[in-house]
Amino acid sequence: MISKNQIKYIQSLHLKKNREEEGFFIIEGLKLVTEFIRDGSYKIKEIYATSDFIEANEDLLNSKKVTFSEITPEELKKISLQVTPNQVLAIVEAKQNRLNLQQVATELTLYLDDIRDPGNLGTMIRIADWFGIKQVICSKTSTEVYNPKTLQASMGAVLRVNVIYKDFSELIKQANGIPVYGAVLNGEDLYRSNLQRGIIVIGNEANGISAEVMKQITHAITIPAAANNGSESLNAANACAIICSEFYRQLTYLS
Amino acid sequence: MISKNQIKYIQSLHLKKNREEEGFFIIEGLKLVTEFIRDGSYKIKEIYATSDFIEANEDLLNSKKVTFSEITPEELKKISLQVTPNQVLAIVEAKQNRLNLQQVATELTLYLDDIRDPGNLGTMIRIADWFGIKQVICSKTSTEVYNPKTLQASMGAVLRVNVIYKDFSELIKQANGIPVYGAVLNGEDLYRSNLQRGIIVIGNEANGISAEVMKQITHAITIPAAANNGSESLNAANACAIICSEFYRQLTYLS
Repeated sequence: MISKNQIKYIQSLHLKKNREEEGFFIIEGLKLVTEFIRDGSYKIKEIYATSDFIEANEDLLNSKKVTFSEITPEELKKISLQVTPNQVLAIVEAKQNRLNLQQVATELTLYLDDIRDPGNLGTMIRIADWFGIKQVICSKTSTEVYNPKTLQASMGAVLRVNVIYKDFSELIKQANGIPVYGAVLNGEDLYRSNLQRGIIVIGNEANGISAEVMKQITHAITIPAAANNGSESLNAANACAIICSEFYRQLTYLS
Repeated sequence: MISKNQIKYIQSLHLKKNREEEGFFIIEGLKLVTEFIRDGSYKIKEIYATSDFIEANEDLLNSKKVTFSEITPEELKKISLQVTPNQVLAIVEAKQNRLNLQQVATELTLYLDDIRDPGNLGTMIRIADWFGIKQVICSKTSTEVYNPKTLQASMGAVLRVNVIYKDFSELIKQANGIPVYGAVLNGEDLYRSNLQRGIIVIGNEANGISAEVMKQITHAITIPAAANNGSESLNAANACAIICSEFYRQLTYLS
């Protein structure tokens, strides 16, 4: 059962404005919700699940002592943002992640400069997770990590990657002297660069890295295109994947 | 001006069934449409454009002798699939691309085994284009290249990449003896593999490479994940980007 007021409240969390005011966000679907329950690093306020979900996950629900309400598939449809809702929706308390400066100084960090597409943001958090990058710092103009599309695309990587919102000017004041690699169209060949630990900057989908951040780039790098191809660019998330892969390869296999 | 019948016809092309029956598809937006006009490899049946587009592209329209109708932004909204239509929509004649077997034997080829998401398909065609892969062969179960989302995500790469639908069993009969690399979860480390020209197989977003195609894989390769990360996989398009990048690097820089 779910009351009209609860439905209204959950629907209000479909909007960023309300998520920020309330300090709560929504996750959906069997895989994402069970991962959040198991992980335990986020406080789950409430779970709304169909009987299928509750039966199949009884042990998990009991062991983690999360409160849940059984709802019908019709009720789930009302509160879900998905075309085909998948058994369960949960309300989760937002966290204010803090920058780990020690990690910025000694490990690889991803900086996302004005990434606007939630799917791209989520995918890039997933890429960071894959390659062991523990911090993704987003410019304050970037899209929201708690957007349902970001969470969906991240496939649970938000549980393991520290996502922080911080303008680059602020970051660089604290991270002075750390190499800053920027993905641009006319930089040094990625594969020929001697890549070291530092900050990798990925720019906006349409406009690339902003002028303000460009000033702080110490190494402009480019994914070389094959000769005579006609393409102008790669999708930001794909570029991010290729660059993180090459950093990983050089740092793991060549050092 | 656009007639009611024309609106109805264009709207019918929003559906795959009708695109296949009619042999026409739709492209939208300033960038994609001008690229198709300039390229000339596809026959454009009709262009519906706002006055803004026509004024800005007068020379192009005249030089290429394409027929166009001026429509209002309101009319464009009626025929468009986009939330924010961008000046122009064109109806284009579909092509039956033919496999270039010589190219399969001597160059790198991408095989997409049951890729279902149109955005993923378009992105992977764009990746192929970037790295100079001239042929992308899709299983017949894969999504349609003329889906508007595929075309949008490909960013015009369909003009340069030969996209063909062919089941793997058919392909391998003709391409016998060519190395077949499959992206799997427990294969040889991508970065330690000695990559050669051949066919790269990317599998379905949820289920990976099908059992049928797996039998034909001669080299199972894996993108290694960082130790102790919790992630299970990368998005299919990102995996494709990383693998194509590493093939490109080895074939271009190490040979």
